[in-house]
Amino acid sequence: ELADMITDEKPDGVLAGLRVLITAGPTREALDPVRFLTNRSSGKMGFALAAACQAAGAQVELIAGPVNLPTPIGVRRYNVESAQQMLDKANERVGKAQILIATAAVADYRPRAVQDDKIKKSSDSIALELEKTPDILGELSRRETHLFTVGFAAETRELERYARAKMQRKNLDMICANEVGPGQGFDVDENALLVFWPGGQQQLGPRHKRALAGELVDLIATRYATGDEHAGAVAP
Amino acid sequence: ELADMITDEKPDGVLAGLRVLITAGPTREALDPVRFLTNRSSGKMGFALAAACQAAGAQVELIAGPVNLPTPIGVRRYNVESAQQMLDKANERVGKAQILIATAAVADYRPRAVQDDKIKKSSDSIALELEKTPDILGELSRRETHLFTVGFAAETRELERYARAKMQRKNLDMICANEVGPGQGFDVDENALLVFWPGGQQQLGPRHKRALAGELVDLIATRYATGDEHAGAVAP
Repeated sequence: ELADMITDEKPDGVLAGLRVLITAGPTREALDPVRFLTNRSSGKMGFALAAACQAAGAQVELIAGPVNLPTPIGVRRYNVESAQQMLDKANERVGKAQILIATAAVADYRPRAVQDDKIKKSSDSIALELEKTPDILGELSRRETHLFTVGFAAETRELERYARAKMQRKNLDMICANEVGPGQGFDVDENALLVFWPGGQQQLGPRHKRALAGELVDLIATRYATGDEHAGAVAP
Repeated sequence: ELADMITDEKPDGVLAGLRVLITAGPTREALDPVRFLTNRSSGKMGFALAAACQAAGAQVELIAGPVNLPTPIGVRRYNVESAQQMLDKANERVGKAQILIATAAVADYRPRAVQDDKIKKSSDSIALELEKTPDILGELSRRETHLFTVGFAAETRELERYARAKMQRKNLDMICANEVGPGQGFDVDENALLVFWPGGQQQLGPRHKRALAGELVDLIATRYATGDEHAGAVAP
């Protein structure tokens, strides 16, 4: 009985002994002290994946943009706001991880100049100059070649085409595509994913994000176990 | 004793028998199906005022942008997203109200063109054309001359100058100014207000938004009772 208890203390599950870094939620890109650009990401999928990875035996760190969700038990959470803050924190935490799951809906563009004071409503129209935010997932994936990287692609159309292009461009081991639009994907509890990897694909769901997360973790563990197929190892 | 109970059923309090319309929270102005422009308004002040007006005997309707707050008991709530939706709902509900309290942090600008599909991250920088949103408070205040109108001004500097200018420009009976910035005004539980009306001013707080709401309701009731000083009646 004592032996059983001691054995139970060792994590088991399909991700036992692995460290997983997860990004989740939207980012906010400030125009001024009060206004910002953001998106409809609720963070639910990333938080569900954090819980599922933890349940599968992994040590999980979660870098979260501004969301209204409780931290899953056993998960270490870091709160950030902007894409730049998310990149900085990911750079700091990625070293020991074997798997990176990037669910965050990072803002693609940010205002080029942040105003110190609130912008006054004076002219009838203004042109807001936007510049690209850092490519967090692509940067980490290309630099950390040991890392098994899982990306997400929320698309309004041409799911497979855009998702496979993103996987290749960012040098990912896997990409999970889902269709978004009113009542789909963002800010809802149900989701469906079309998962692609260099040599295959699989449909998961539609079902509750928590159940979907468990299935995706199983698939990630299976693909991770194939090891030598890591995109990081074969990229130019 | 029976007489007491019957008397108790009639609302009393400083706003007894009055109908109050309140707007609260931020608005979201869509760039495309997933991205939007918004601000840090939590809606807490508006919701606290709705509860305080209801407790003061008023019939309260609350038009709320996207916030994460429960509806105060006895208050009728309408959820909206954009400035245009907030204006449409306010136009529909304002007719029977005697008092309008506009706490909403309505987005000043919105993207001129909303994209049907998600914008692809192709160019290094883009210029986003923004146009003014409708001036909800100004429009209602100028048209509904019977209405006692209370506005809010969140400013990063020159509080009194900007607040008094806004009160005059929008033809308001009262304006509540507060300083915003990191840890101030937005998304926090404490607040302080500098309240101006055409002939005077009063400092309220700093204290918890709920306590502050009660004091502000007393002040609104007092100013409303002066009746003939309504800006609506004397505007050019």
